[in-house]
Amino acid sequence: MNCEYIAVGTEILLGQILNTNAKFISEELAEVGIDMYYQTVVGDNEGRLTDAVRTALGRADIVITSGGLGPTNDDITKEVVAKTLGLPLEFDEASMENIRQRFCKMHRDYNKTLQEKQAYMPKGCIILKNNNGTAPGCIIEQNGKIVIVLPGPPKEIQPMFLESVKPYLRKLSPYQLYSRVIKIFGMGEANVEEIFGERMRKATNPTIAPYAKEGETTLRVTSKCSTREEGEALVSKEVANICTRLGDVVYSTEDETLAEAVVKRLISSKHTLAVAESCTGGYLAQSITSIPGASEIFSEGFVTYSNEAKQKYLNVPEKTLEIYGAVSDETAKAMAEGLREVSGADIAVSITGIAGPGGGSAEKPVGLVYIGICTKLGTNVKKLNLNGNREHIRYLTVLHALDMIRRAL
Amino acid sequence: MNCEYIAVGTEILLGQILNTNAKFISEELAEVGIDMYYQTVVGDNEGRLTDAVRTALGRADIVITSGGLGPTNDDITKEVVAKTLGLPLEFDEASMENIRQRFCKMHRDYNKTLQEKQAYMPKGCIILKNNNGTAPGCIIEQNGKIVIVLPGPPKEIQPMFLESVKPYLRKLSPYQLYSRVIKIFGMGEANVEEIFGERMRKATNPTIAPYAKEGETTLRVTSKCSTREEGEALVSKEVANICTRLGDVVYSTEDETLAEAVVKRLISSKHTLAVAESCTGGYLAQSITSIPGASEIFSEGFVTYSNEAKQKYLNVPEKTLEIYGAVSDETAKAMAEGLREVSGADIAVSITGIAGPGGGSAEKPVGLVYIGICTKLGTNVKKLNLNGNREHIRYLTVLHALDMIRRAL
Repeated sequence: MNCEYIAVGTEILLGQILNTNAKFISEELAEVGIDMYYQTVVGDNEGRLTDAVRTALGRADIVITSGGLGPTNDDITKEVVAKTLGLPLEFDEASMENIRQRFCKMHRDYNKTLQEKQAYMPKGCIILKNNNGTAPGCIIEQNGKIVIVLPGPPKEIQPMFLESVKPYLRKLSPYQLYSRVIKIFGMGEANVEEIFGERMRKATNPTIAPYAKEGETTLRVTSKCSTREEGEALVSKEVANICTRLGDVVYSTEDETLAEAVVKRLISSKHTLAVAESCTGGYLAQSITSIPGASEIFSEGFVTYSNEAKQKYLNVPEKTLEIYGAVSDETAKAMAEGLREVSGADIAVSITGIAGPGGGSAEKPVGLVYIGICTKLGTNVKKLNLNGNREHIRYLTVLHALDMIRRAL
Repeated sequence: MNCEYIAVGTEILLGQILNTNAKFISEELAEVGIDMYYQTVVGDNEGRLTDAVRTALGRADIVITSGGLGPTNDDITKEVVAKTLGLPLEFDEASMENIRQRFCKMHRDYNKTLQEKQAYMPKGCIILKNNNGTAPGCIIEQNGKIVIVLPGPPKEIQPMFLESVKPYLRKLSPYQLYSRVIKIFGMGEANVEEIFGERMRKATNPTIAPYAKEGETTLRVTSKCSTREEGEALVSKEVANICTRLGDVVYSTEDETLAEAVVKRLISSKHTLAVAESCTGGYLAQSITSIPGASEIFSEGFVTYSNEAKQKYLNVPEKTLEIYGAVSDETAKAMAEGLREVSGADIAVSITGIAGPGGGSAEKPVGLVYIGICTKLGTNVKKLNLNGNREHIRYLTVLHALDMIRRAL
């Protein structure tokens, strides 16, 4: 059982809006165990939309469309689908009543001819009431194919899908999908592939799929079973195997970010944290405090961008800055130690580096970063040579700092 | 001249990631005056990818693919495109050298067999060097059709498109599109539409299109002319008209963020800035320091998350915190004034509020935020009642703070 999704809307083709419905529908289909093989985006053009619907019917069991159900002349999806399937449109009084009531509620007049267009539905379809808008959706079953026509606005399509379409599809799918992720920092996708490549290619249930985000790698382990319990057991066993093999580069087996994992551990282990940042300029503090509950473990942070600020607030000796420079092992160490003393935090982290594009030299190039971490056990400084633009260097630096905190716990 | 875009990636079909490349490519194509009629998403599957490439070649002049160029066995886009067009792959030494250098720079070993795969390119293609990753892209011209094969990661495809593909496409298009943006903070899209709605609907050259991002509104004025000079003249006149009508809610007529506009003005007017943040936890400092050159005007920032930190570093009187609470007009004022004294900056900005989800009360609900700004002219505090989740509240707070700095200059 596989599906093709067609988003109808010239505004997507013009790049004016992101196709967030595609992500929503795809995630939901994966969850009920229906494969999506193709997604298509097409504009509000009769010829091209007809072509897209025909192509989809030729290669998919289920075709889901979104958009183009409104009252204007541009809205042609339902009309094109009905024509392609050879179905006449019939007036549905219940749908019209829903439209009337919505306008009444909003105390607004409406253009009867325009709005009536939305109540004409393909003959014999299952009508999906729109509780958050005027245009109803519908499900059409014909010759073993299913076409599901849905509205475009996310606040209309999402509840309609969850309330009406998902239960309908669940009955069609013999499978339950269950998946978990393994989140990795400090080992690239290529290296992970080297270790698990063969298993990834050969595994069928559960499957193992890698994907890389800037600086991080994720493995998703997915099983397709007839019961959730069976899937859970298969996945848990594989996740445990992989984690044992990978060791401490795995920072989580939940769907959480590195910042979330770190804040959670700080809270559960009752360790407080303070940070002092130069080149990241508040990015680390921002990442930490973006997580709800961070106030339990985070009391303060400094952005000591200038040398004077490093001396004034963190008591970095002037000599250290003079002899070794602001971007050095020694300054990172002095910043972390000064910060721990000033703040009284259990863990004090310092960052100093050159994020670029300016400020680099042959000796100290753009991308050179030192991260210091000071705990009751002592101080440790890590030197990094990062690639990329200013934004990327700052982002990677924050991930490395978070990973050092995780490892210190 | 029309184009079809094919995104290759099972992770998009599974709903694991948003197809942001589609929006990027679509916007860029619109700008060079090339129509996009279809977008397709297909997984890392040889049969279906071949089918998608064939279908696209049958209905479009230009086919652009993204994704599936990496070193793993899953990455098959280049191979499928070459096979479909009947082209052999040839080893490109320059591409391999680029890969070698990248690994060398990162001080990392690499698997030769895996990485080499990326240096095999379709015979006779124009190779597009990847300055931000290992996999090169390419342009293939055959029988009046053009296929452009690009990498998937946004930080690779975006610079490659802007540096190599856009200039190439611009030469193919008979039109020159010229556009400028008007960036607005403090007036919603609906209000802008109320003022300019009729002009937007009737205007043909230049056109005026609004789009709203969280908290900001942008108007894009675009002309389609045969010469750039002609377009520039039409657009400049319309931009001037709109700016006169809107007044000081316009913060820029360049394509820059509010943070960029603020940092630029601080630099040109030689004013220094310091910030003290509670609920935004470093977000404002991060926004400022994300702009190259910020070190000229930004020396220090504080994340005073706890009451103790507010007292210790900003000299907020204990009494103020006791009587009015941390989230109050009085505390914001004391933070800004304390900060200006401690830092010696020309402009001192403080933020205190409740970002949620916890911490709210009937009297002080989630979304209540005070922003203080202290200059030699005195102190001013703005009270906000924001809606949304933690992330949204923090983001909007930063925009408001930046706007207050802009207005203070």
